[in-house]
Amino acid sequence: MALKEFNDLADFRIADVEALLALATRLQRQPEPQALAGKVLALLFLSPSLRTLSSFQAAMVRLGGGSFVISPEMSIHGLETRSGIVMDGAAAEHMREGVPVIASYGDAVGIRVFANRSSLADDLADKEYNAMRALVKKPLINMESAIQHPCQSLADWKTMDELAIPRRGGKFVLSWAWHPKALPLAVPSATLHMAAMRGMDVTVVRPAGFELPPAVMDKARQAATLSGGSVRETSDRREALEGAHVIYAKEWSSTRHYGDRVADAKLREELQDWRVDDPWFATTRPDCRFMHCLPVRRGVAVTDRVLDGPRSVVIHEAENRMWGQMAVLYQMMGPGA
Amino acid sequence: MALKEFNDLADFRIADVEALLALATRLQRQPEPQALAGKVLALLFLSPSLRTLSSFQAAMVRLGGGSFVISPEMSIHGLETRSGIVMDGAAAEHMREGVPVIASYGDAVGIRVFANRSSLADDLADKEYNAMRALVKKPLINMESAIQHPCQSLADWKTMDELAIPRRGGKFVLSWAWHPKALPLAVPSATLHMAAMRGMDVTVVRPAGFELPPAVMDKARQAATLSGGSVRETSDRREALEGAHVIYAKEWSSTRHYGDRVADAKLREELQDWRVDDPWFATTRPDCRFMHCLPVRRGVAVTDRVLDGPRSVVIHEAENRMWGQMAVLYQMMGPGA
Amino acid sequence: MALKEFNDLADFRIADVEALLALATRLQRQPEPQALAGKVLALLFLSPSLRTLSSFQAAMVRLGGGSFVISPEMSIHGLETRSGIVMDGAAAEHMREGVPVIASYGDAVGIRVFANRSSLADDLADKEYNAMRALVKKPLINMESAIQHPCQSLADWKTMDELAIPRRGGKFVLSWAWHPKALPLAVPSATLHMAAMRGMDVTVVRPAGFELPPAVMDKARQAATLSGGSVRETSDRREALEGAHVIYAKEWSSTRHYGDRVADAKLREELQDWRVDDPWFATTRPDCRFMHCLPVRRGVAVTDRVLDGPRSVVIHEAENRMWGQMAVLYQMMGPGA
Repeated sequence: MALKEFNDLADFRIADVEALLALATRLQRQPEPQALAGKVLALLFLSPSLRTLSSFQAAMVRLGGGSFVISPEMSIHGLETRSGIVMDGAAAEHMREGVPVIASYGDAVGIRVFANRSSLADDLADKEYNAMRALVKKPLINMESAIQHPCQSLADWKTMDELAIPRRGGKFVLSWAWHPKALPLAVPSATLHMAAMRGMDVTVVRPAGFELPPAVMDKARQAATLSGGSVRETSDRREALEGAHVIYAKEWSSTRHYGDRVADAKLREELQDWRVDDPWFATTRPDCRFMHCLPVRRGVAVTDRVLDGPRSVVIHEAENRMWGQMAVLYQMMGPGA
Repeated sequence: MALKEFNDLADFRIADVEALLALATRLQRQPEPQALAGKVLALLFLSPSLRTLSSFQAAMVRLGGGSFVISPEMSIHGLETRSGIVMDGAAAEHMREGVPVIASYGDAVGIRVFANRSSLADDLADKEYNAMRALVKKPLINMESAIQHPCQSLADWKTMDELAIPRRGGKFVLSWAWHPKALPLAVPSATLHMAAMRGMDVTVVRPAGFELPPAVMDKARQAATLSGGSVRETSDRREALEGAHVIYAKEWSSTRHYGDRVADAKLREELQDWRVDDPWFATTRPDCRFMHCLPVRRGVAVTDRVLDGPRSVVIHEAENRMWGQMAVLYQMMGPGA
Repeated sequence: MALKEFNDLADFRIADVEALLALATRLQRQPEPQALAGKVLALLFLSPSLRTLSSFQAAMVRLGGGSFVISPEMSIHGLETRSGIVMDGAAAEHMREGVPVIASYGDAVGIRVFANRSSLADDLADKEYNAMRALVKKPLINMESAIQHPCQSLADWKTMDELAIPRRGGKFVLSWAWHPKALPLAVPSATLHMAAMRGMDVTVVRPAGFELPPAVMDKARQAATLSGGSVRETSDRREALEGAHVIYAKEWSSTRHYGDRVADAKLREELQDWRVDDPWFATTRPDCRFMHCLPVRRGVAVTDRVLDGPRSVVIHEAENRMWGQMAVLYQMMGPGA
């Protein structure tokens, strides 16, 4: 499988994902430090990062290649993204030049650009990411956009496989968690789809006003139909958590008030009990795991005792970012590509 | 040719440049991912960068080596460059230590430092760059200084060769373009010299008050004498553009008011029609190309329709930065060095 | 010797240090550009850096591996280090996640974190560094903490060996030097220990109120007992400098007023004559060398004429950072590890 784009797990068959995961595990066990000799990964970060920034650079080194990082705050005076603009402000470069130039130096490209969080339609359409994607002719990796985070999904799938969390019959609870800010929908949307595609019985639990968009739910339901899983949404936390194999917590924006920070803040101000804590596991399976994509605010979204306790697999998930991405990079630039 | 310094195309014979370009094309077609195994390029950026920062890192990876980047804003509290100073301000390090230390970690060194734009004589003498150059014993690459930009020139020469733009008889128009700020003379000076050395008939067209310095013009005329080309300067845009193979646009400072930002701003405020647009190509050759070193402000120096149209080769030029620099790095640190 | 940690020269026997230095010299003379192929060094900088940042990246490239850098100011919104905190401020990530995640991507890890300079007991116990160290299961390098700087010590030892500065009988003067700020104790403490361990007769000379802590002095005395060296402390500069082979200058905080910036500033305001200058060498050995770990403020801690004169070996020391660290990295991740 010569991979040209890694944007959305939904673009792949279940068997394709399994093949990527098998390759990831092979590269983890049997290093191939010459596989990408002389190959370059161009990394464009339009939003901050720790795991993605680190794990992609490390992945390229492990395969014998290398990378470079461009971030407007680190190196240039901003990157203008609006069309048809007279550039008489601070930004000295437009993405219509910047993106193709960066891409011209790489054998593959990774782009990270967060949601604008003003128009839900625009973010669901991944407007800004897709504007950049149209400028790249090389193999392209979505390193998190307004609505996608396929590398996180690959890592999470691998983590659950390694922990022997069942596919069919595995109960996956994606829970909204409290946070002072209105964060993007990328991780909840991608995670929901991943768990559904993995064949799990997925429950999204969130307060009223934080429903995932129908388009996201419908897409996941279609994946569940193919995989033998199921997808449902509720605001009843007690009922949702019963018998869970996994609680996957994520903070996200109100979809009822998307783009309206004042209304979102008002809605969430009473929701601080959506902080994952030990009592949440009272009716789950005894071996229920706690998952989160990180970064996480301790004492805000989750308590210390959950994060520091034996249920938490957040570091395992983060490490798997690297191994999963190595498989993607290998398929894009390696011997078989 | 074991290369010790890459500072100015004028230091090379035409045949040397042709050999570098042939090597660049060879490395582009036949990768040598072990050529610089274990070799380190030390990169010191005292001014912001996108193409240079990216393309040098990518070039080293493609040849099997690596690089590191030091930029005062990214890592240290400023680098003092003045001599004999009592360092009781913010800067914790002087270039007299910083530069040799950085150089000691590399097999070759790249330095970028922009023009001060206060004294024309100092900038023409490349005072600040030369102060640093004196502190480096390793092979050294000028990554753009007050008056030089040899890597850009190498890339532009390669681009014109690939587009079959003629050397002898090729008509190269270097045009001043509008910009809100008084930018350096490095690119126009280096570009003029490159085109003259390539044997082209070069016309510099600029408004009154923006004449290139006589020393720069005279040096280019000498290159033209050797190459069979020619060099002239005019403010008559209509006449300059007639029959052009290339319009190469660049924004630069007033030389009449060099260092006087108020007078420069006043002089340029009426010059916004020096924005390259389709009508500029009315009397050029039909296949006339548009070149620019980037970054470029859309709607300011050039219109969208020129940049997005078929004449523009700006991305091609930028990509050639990498291939040209690979030849330079190979000659500095590679098998034959 | 498979190395698991490089934190303090005191953890090693003299013969171990000599073996590391012999390996450093071997790698300097006979490059091994495949030794660490596919290996990753994870670098976490919680304080600014030039030499450490550059030399570790260069070291990994020379051995055929690579590295990545995480610095809160460059990539993330700060890294919370306090325990049990409710993270409702700016920091979006806690070190309890950040550090293990970064470590999970590397085969070895380097951490730099400066002294808090509020509690002397905490800094002597290296409280913050040790909190991070407890989170790392991989081989770990101290890249400068509140009280350690073993990479600097290794480089300085190598430099003195290369300059044939005697071990037994060599007179090493560690002198306090003036600086406007209250700097950490890491370098003076590590340097004192290094010189004592190397078998030298060490004199610490500093103004009253800047005595090194008894625990630091006692530890160095024990090292001197084993090595055949000696350790003493004085405020009499004239007497201290007599017959010196080396003046090693370093700026540090008042220990009498540790954590009290006002009292420290008041104490040091009369001490500007602790600026190393030519007269300091009047009664030293004629070939006495000047050493400093850099960065150094010219005209503040040392005069230009000393730094630019033949006694100064500061660039040599800095270059040896890279070669010494290569030996450490080789022992942690290389063929024998």
